[in-house]
Amino acid sequence: LPIGDDLAALRFQAGDILLAGADQALDGVHFDSRVHDPRAIGRKATNRNLSDCAAMGCLPVAAIVTMALPRGSGDEFARELYMGIEEAGALQDCTIIGGDTASWDGKLAITVAILGRSDIKPITRAGAKVGEGIYLSGPVGGSLLGRHMTFRPRVLFGHMLAKRESVSAMVDISDGLTRDLQHICRASNVGAVLYASAIPIHDDAMQMHDHLSPLEHALYDGEDYELLFTSPHALQVSSSDGSSSILIGQVISEPGMWLERNGQRTPIDPLGWDYQL
Amino acid sequence: LPIGDDLAALRFQAGDILLAGADQALDGVHFDSRVHDPRAIGRKATNRNLSDCAAMGCLPVAAIVTMALPRGSGDEFARELYMGIEEAGALQDCTIIGGDTASWDGKLAITVAILGRSDIKPITRAGAKVGEGIYLSGPVGGSLLGRHMTFRPRVLFGHMLAKRESVSAMVDISDGLTRDLQHICRASNVGAVLYASAIPIHDDAMQMHDHLSPLEHALYDGEDYELLFTSPHALQVSSSDGSSSILIGQVISEPGMWLERNGQRTPIDPLGWDYQL
Repeated sequence: LPIGDDLAALRFQAGDILLAGADQALDGVHFDSRVHDPRAIGRKATNRNLSDCAAMGCLPVAAIVTMALPRGSGDEFARELYMGIEEAGALQDCTIIGGDTASWDGKLAITVAILGRSDIKPITRAGAKVGEGIYLSGPVGGSLLGRHMTFRPRVLFGHMLAKRESVSAMVDISDGLTRDLQHICRASNVGAVLYASAIPIHDDAMQMHDHLSPLEHALYDGEDYELLFTSPHALQVSSSDGSSSILIGQVISEPGMWLERNGQRTPIDPLGWDYQL
Repeated sequence: LPIGDDLAALRFQAGDILLAGADQALDGVHFDSRVHDPRAIGRKATNRNLSDCAAMGCLPVAAIVTMALPRGSGDEFARELYMGIEEAGALQDCTIIGGDTASWDGKLAITVAILGRSDIKPITRAGAKVGEGIYLSGPVGGSLLGRHMTFRPRVLFGHMLAKRESVSAMVDISDGLTRDLQHICRASNVGAVLYASAIPIHDDAMQMHDHLSPLEHALYDGEDYELLFTSPHALQVSSSDGSSSILIGQVISEPGMWLERNGQRTPIDPLGWDYQL
């Protein structure tokens, strides 16, 4: 159907599974409208959702966008915001098919609802098994320095992993490596050991200069949007976007999470640091 | 899939068309959190979207909900809000399958994205033809007195009309009778005459006691959420929810909209009154 009706219409392949979800991007929580330009804000709003598709190994198809604009934002601001939203979608073949825009006496709030498709069973958090390796798609930590606004969602890498049946459980890192690992552990009813020396620490984590070490930033910082996954295989895969399978630990039967350093295991508290803009 | 992953998964019947859209409910625009209780706010947030399904003659299947809660709203408030959202969906067999909740230093904002299905071509705004009758599903005007919070979306009536191939174009009245009629006229490239004496005026429109007449309220007030549709047939249908086909005018070839009163036609300005809470 052409645009302009209350709902958009799509026809799905028979057999394809439809995946659907939504994430918000809120001023003062996920971005700061005093600092970040509208195009970048729009991109992030979409990319957060595309990253959810990546985490489940599915391909994004379409997105629906609602924007609550502070009264007086102006047409140019709204247009830039929308261009950012559309631009990020287009890079992953995801079309904006509808939504709703309103002005209000409130702060900028954007919700993107995303529709994805999968011709295989989507990857969840619940498939990790004892003995499997734990992998990251790239270095983490220090995203607050700017990467949380500019990350590229790992859609193709996630889809490749799912297609090759290489992964048993997967999430994208939004809450932080250890918290998102805990999501997998709880859903899969397993525990995890992380090898301190194997965790890829992003350069940004070295530049944070606060009371946390770079390793702690890698373990606890949120909004990295790398993929965290488990696999029964010894994976050595990489993709053209710079993602690769980096082994960082192992799934164990004992519930809980441990950091292994110089042969010593210490328990990890996933609430190490509370990410806040 | 069980709940808890980044996206929810659904399997669609082969041949079914998927419909998708989203609407916001914003504090100070669509409700007033100082006056309306959270359960009623939640209901309205869902019902606005269910009404979009009604307008296209499709059946709602699932909804995805994001909520931006003012910091300190409390668990009870959030729970009541969610119960209202869920309750309204359940009445129309629409399940909440996922979403995102966050706290922020902003006002209450809710977005509901809705997924519907149709085994026939969905009804749009673009099918009205010269000579057809223009119909309303019920009386309009004065919704501001409370009905804008408590309306029941005309899902079954809309679906029945679509299934029987009784309608050529349809919308739900959110912006106001004349503005939404203009949407049909423009999309269908036609004009319209409304018969003043035939327009069903809601009792609430009589109680407004302002500078507008009850008829003007019926013509210009928004958020009635009755269905406005055109049909090539002389319809006389009604449904168990109290909806019926009320003939209020005729589609004409000349672009524009006219009000016919005592045999005289006067042009209608759809911007008669700007609905604002």
